[in-house]
Amino acid sequence: MREIYMGLVEQVRVKKPLVHHITNYVTVNDCANITLDIGASPIMADALEEAEDIAGIASAVVLNMGTLNERTIPAMITAGRAANETGVPVVFDPVGAGASKLRNETAVRILQEVKISVLRGNISEIRFLAGLHAETKGVDAAEADLQNIEDAISVAKTMAVRSGCVVAITGAVDVVSDGRRCVCIENGHSMLSNLTGTGCMCSSLIGSFCGAAPEAPLEAAVTALLSMGIAGELAFERAGHNGNGSFHAALHDAVSKLDGEILVGRARLYEA
Amino acid sequence: MREIYMGLVEQVRVKKPLVHHITNYVTVNDCANITLDIGASPIMADALEEAEDIAGIASAVVLNMGTLNERTIPAMITAGRAANETGVPVVFDPVGAGASKLRNETAVRILQEVKISVLRGNISEIRFLAGLHAETKGVDAAEADLQNIEDAISVAKTMAVRSGCVVAITGAVDVVSDGRRCVCIENGHSMLSNLTGTGCMCSSLIGSFCGAAPEAPLEAAVTALLSMGIAGELAFERAGHNGNGSFHAALHDAVSKLDGEILVGRARLYEA
Amino acid sequence: MREIYMGLVEQVRVKKPLVHHITNYVTVNDCANITLDIGASPIMADALEEAEDIAGIASAVVLNMGTLNERTIPAMITAGRAANETGVPVVFDPVGAGASKLRNETAVRILQEVKISVLRGNISEIRFLAGLHAETKGVDAAEADLQNIEDAISVAKTMAVRSGCVVAITGAVDVVSDGRRCVCIENGHSMLSNLTGTGCMCSSLIGSFCGAAPEAPLEAAVTALLSMGIAGELAFERAGHNGNGSFHAALHDAVSKLDGEILVGRARLYEA
Repeated sequence: MREIYMGLVEQVRVKKPLVHHITNYVTVNDCANITLDIGASPIMADALEEAEDIAGIASAVVLNMGTLNERTIPAMITAGRAANETGVPVVFDPVGAGASKLRNETAVRILQEVKISVLRGNISEIRFLAGLHAETKGVDAAEADLQNIEDAISVAKTMAVRSGCVVAITGAVDVVSDGRRCVCIENGHSMLSNLTGTGCMCSSLIGSFCGAAPEAPLEAAVTALLSMGIAGELAFERAGHNGNGSFHAALHDAVSKLDGEILVGRARLYEA
Repeated sequence: MREIYMGLVEQVRVKKPLVHHITNYVTVNDCANITLDIGASPIMADALEEAEDIAGIASAVVLNMGTLNERTIPAMITAGRAANETGVPVVFDPVGAGASKLRNETAVRILQEVKISVLRGNISEIRFLAGLHAETKGVDAAEADLQNIEDAISVAKTMAVRSGCVVAITGAVDVVSDGRRCVCIENGHSMLSNLTGTGCMCSSLIGSFCGAAPEAPLEAAVTALLSMGIAGELAFERAGHNGNGSFHAALHDAVSKLDGEILVGRARLYEA
Repeated sequence: MREIYMGLVEQVRVKKPLVHHITNYVTVNDCANITLDIGASPIMADALEEAEDIAGIASAVVLNMGTLNERTIPAMITAGRAANETGVPVVFDPVGAGASKLRNETAVRILQEVKISVLRGNISEIRFLAGLHAETKGVDAAEADLQNIEDAISVAKTMAVRSGCVVAITGAVDVVSDGRRCVCIENGHSMLSNLTGTGCMCSSLIGSFCGAAPEAPLEAAVTALLSMGIAGELAFERAGHNGNGSFHAALHDAVSKLDGEILVGRARLYEA
């Protein structure tokens, strides 16, 4: 099992999949850089007029609605559908679902009109999309929703069955499920929540690994979250005491230096 | 007096106010990260369709016209008015006022249509908005305007009386006035002007402190500028000799490590 | 000859030219910061309504189509033409030319409607614009195009003659030609391709030097690429072993610390 994750880290560096992002302008630079850190190749392009062309040359598509607007929503739908037609995996990050009518409707519409391979969000966002009661505090998980792992496992499985996609809920413990299997990842560090965009960067890593292994979205998502969690630990060990700025740089350092051996040596995960 | 500023640094970390930004795409990542550094929670959302919803769940709204356009200007007005209705403080950063007709008209329009709690700009921008003669060199203060502190004090007081908002003019010495009182802050470092977005980051910090203490916009603005000034000094001491990139990371480090004791220990300010 | 490049580094710091960018939201923060690092002053403004006003106060205009859209394309044309009318140099970075119909048509349109001083791209992008066979892999040069220096020299000369602009092709060896002369720059480091935006940053540096020496676009482009190449070497020496994040910060450090002496001491270039 661990050999699969180990192998994916090597594969992404060999295959260098092109990952098409339609994403927000807040964290886009970190998303592009973490895609390069892990060994894939990012292309950010959100004009409707080129959504099909770019999705057509990509190995994975990442749709992130962090700063969605009337111009980018149709581009997301078009890019997603174009990817569906050629079997290119689509990762969807429903940033802030629950926080506004526009976000709620857009998230539902994307899930209806595009076949998603991996849906990644925090517990509040995924609870909302699963039709369960959710508190929302902007783009971060509400404290009321940070209950327990059993709850996250149940939400992930329910949503995976209902949506037909792999569901990844990130938090203190990350939970990934395809409806049948469910993997829990204990790696990570609380300092990751001091930086904007660590959720978005997880989605970019999922896109990168999906691009390298489109046939294995569960394993791709797990490997991505392991990578981020372990990089967070390494960044904290080296630079966390300095503060957020040094931690930020050290996080990119750690992802760029990651290899299969580090991943397997530090992975703390179990099936639930 | 200093106990107020000290207390605000503790309060923002306890209350974690949600700060809604409609801001530019140049410095948005730094704005989100400095909001997290100081202990608040950022949400960046500029679609007109969700401006009311997001302003409605926020504790403060920051309007920054750094890269304004026809899509975001109405969103700023709508978010500002929604905040006004529920008494949520609005911070306005008129980036580049004086540099183009579009910026001039938009700044005037926002000041007319939205009740602003704190207006923050450089001396050229605030002189322009006060109807005084101003040189403009893009988004940075013109050298001709960098005259003397007495002038800045006079401009801040005049504009505060005229506009009814707290006016914060940042520069070598920062000046904050509500029309009656006027506080001058001597903290800071010239290297701050080597980085893009240090002005925008000041506005995000003001929004963060206003979110924690909406009843005290003058104190919120002073605490924000003290925080930035002191963080700039600390960043220079630790990393300034390396160059701009290290200074940039060290600035986020310093804000994330700031506490009331550091603030009071290093504050250099006086009333004028 | 080297004295010219050395002098330009001093000149840009004295003249502090205002560089108007209409650029992408992925790398815009790095572009603004590198413009400040080298001593120039950035202004990012992409609204059509202010394109003329801002171009009118700038010393150089940089058009970068990294995340082009229906709103920014007319702004680029308008800003470019306004700059042409007053003799302000225009730098064009045709990011991703060859990757979509929208990019192809926009690049051709800009070259037709705006007089460009310096055109900078990777070998795939410039081959495409020169009407030569090109592979494209998103926004990075395709491996099939990374052939040999002779080829890049030939493409640069051909395109320079055909377009009437200075053409700069960046890669392992950078090539700059005005159709008659051709300068090859061997400085640089492979780690630069691990970061997003190093190409865009080259264009911002070219804009900065063009703003300081509008009469000498070839020399401006060579000085810019020397600056980036040498900064990449210095950043690698100091921080490359840590990984991409530290290298990123060290790159800004190195550009901000660059002076004419370092430039001349480390320059490795020849005319071809």
